Amino acid sequence: MSQYWSPLVQQLEPYVPGEQPKDQRYIKLNTNECPYPPSPKVLAAIQQELADTLRLYPDPNADLFKDAIAAYYGLESKQVFVGNGSDEVLAHVFHALFKPDQPLLFPDISYSFYPVYANLYRLSVKQIPLATDFSLDLTAYTPANGGIIFPNPNAPTGSALELAAIEQLLQLNSSSVVVVDEAYVDFGAATAIPLIHQYPNLLVVQTLSKSRSLAGLRAGFAVGHPALIEALERVKNSFNSYPLDRLAIVGAAAAMQDQAYFAEICQKIIKTRTRVVTQLQALGFQVLPSAANFVFARPPLGNAEAIYLALKAQGVLVRHFNKPRIQAYLRITIGTEAEMDVLLAKLSALVAV
Amino acid sequence: MSQYWSPLVQQLEPYVPGEQPKDQRYIKLNTNECPYPPSPKVLAAIQQELADTLRLYPDPNADLFKDAIAAYYGLESKQVFVGNGSDEVLAHVFHALFKPDQPLLFPDISYSFYPVYANLYRLSVKQIPLATDFSLDLTAYTPANGGIIFPNPNAPTGSALELAAIEQLLQLNSSSVVVVDEAYVDFGAATAIPLIHQYPNLLVVQTLSKSRSLAGLRAGFAVGHPALIEALERVKNSFNSYPLDRLAIVGAAAAMQDQAYFAEICQKIIKTRTRVVTQLQALGFQVLPSAANFVFARPPLGNAEAIYLALKAQGVLVRHFNKPRIQAYLRITIGTEAEMDVLLAKLSALVAV
Repeated sequence: MSQYWSPLVQQLEPYVPGEQPKDQRYIKLNTNECPYPPSPKVLAAIQQELADTLRLYPDPNADLFKDAIAAYYGLESKQVFVGNGSDEVLAHVFHALFKPDQPLLFPDISYSFYPVYANLYRLSVKQIPLATDFSLDLTAYTPANGGIIFPNPNAPTGSALELAAIEQLLQLNSSSVVVVDEAYVDFGAATAIPLIHQYPNLLVVQTLSKSRSLAGLRAGFAVGHPALIEALERVKNSFNSYPLDRLAIVGAAAAMQDQAYFAEICQKIIKTRTRVVTQLQALGFQVLPSAANFVFARPPLGNAEAIYLALKAQGVLVRHFNKPRIQAYLRITIGTEAEMDVLLAKLSALVAV
Repeated sequence: MSQYWSPLVQQLEPYVPGEQPKDQRYIKLNTNECPYPPSPKVLAAIQQELADTLRLYPDPNADLFKDAIAAYYGLESKQVFVGNGSDEVLAHVFHALFKPDQPLLFPDISYSFYPVYANLYRLSVKQIPLATDFSLDLTAYTPANGGIIFPNPNAPTGSALELAAIEQLLQLNSSSVVVVDEAYVDFGAATAIPLIHQYPNLLVVQTLSKSRSLAGLRAGFAVGHPALIEALERVKNSFNSYPLDRLAIVGAAAAMQDQAYFAEICQKIIKTRTRVVTQLQALGFQVLPSAANFVFARPPLGNAEAIYLALKAQGVLVRHFNKPRIQAYLRITIGTEAEMDVLLAKLSALVAV
């Protein structure tokens, strides 16, 4: 607290990302990164751009990246917005598309950055509880609102929605913007992107951090009706003309273009997840159905925090949320086959104690 | 305009950056980029980082970059804030450190992003006119205010202030934050950074886009009292945990570390500037004294727009601002010796007409 802070600053409760420890090398299953490297074409594209041109500003519109997204999904570029990671995209969404005069609706158990953004832009919120089985029931999103946002699949639960449920919500909620945050969609859920042609109030947000192995490059995007995209551009161009650097633009574009590599990575993760779920269940874990690159699992005795700490002491990081309703669960990222073997062996020993 | 825009969006007047044309190769003297490449050590550092680790999130605190800045200026890391270009840093400054209950003060002729940021964060502003000779008189910054910001050297004029004038302002204005935007300081002005130890209300912002040839990498920083830095961190961590990607962090750190290369580049620019000023004056241009990597010059007939258009048609881009008081001037970035030879030859022909 300082006399020099704006009135806003003292009211903020900043987001705390998952641990990125520097003290030792861990098997990192705590921040849903991809265990496989990005496409070799990404590295080649960055390599080629890595030259004298770094002295020149990047394209402020990042058209190369936008065009690659548009081509991948069969869209026009004016239906695409890009940003410095989907976190930056989401921040602009909260500023540009949610109305302060009614509460913003989102699930009580979900991405914990949502209440932080709402606070940053002084939006009131109404959190809608997940069902007892942690499923997301969109028919409960009936209150008058200034916008709705939810992840599909949800995090940290991993559960996916049917598109029919999303479509019904869009129809019943035509006067405010509905944002589907699809950070994990490529691991087994259906994207809502085809619905943007019918629903001018739908915005879909995706990231290249998970299924395209580029958490370290910071690239995300949103697609929707051109009027929604224009709102985001107006905020972006009042904030930072050049949020994506030259290397990120060419790398992100190459990642969208290499469809074969992308499909292969996603299939590998899904295959490993299937096997891990079976083995966790065999150890007595209760595992929620997951369409993401992580599983949300309750150890047999519900002693999630103790297991998190024991794993960390043994060089394996998973995520534990010390929050109501979910403190008995662990969120475990799907790593390589070998990493999951190590995890399962350690868990086997820990739950046998 | 759309029913789905937040009330803010329709009131925004986004910033328009200098042209980055893609239609042909120009001699680009319009956005104050450095004509020389970044240090070879920057490219080597990025090269080394360019590997599988792109799949992992970067350090959210970018400590490597912060430590390099701290080492360069003899500071502690807690006195340093970093961002995705100084434009992002400035945006957070407007949000975190300027108070909405009193007007923000800045020069009427200055960086044209300032009124855009103020509008984004709903700050009222009071623009203080430059003197008739375009000098910045800080003794005119007497009105009660919610903050003060100015570039040193100023843009687009290039004129530098004495530190004594800044220190006097800090003393007379101890209850609000004073931000010195030093984007161009390395080309001949004195940095106010040593003053941060005495003045808890001083924040100094710098960029790696100009003197460190990294406009394409997006890296900037602010230094000041730890309480000011903490305010910026709180806003940053409510907006985007990872604004700097892995390649930008290592590249920016390497740029700060290679002091010899940096000094050489700055000296070359200053030497070319001295020669260009003399030759422009010989052609009848009125040239403001510049401590930046550009000059602000009035052609003999004041026909700046016509000359800008004629140069563009001939493949040379300079910057013309169609604004009151300065429409008779051109802002010309200092390029290589060869680029300036081409420019001067073309100008010689144009003013002889």
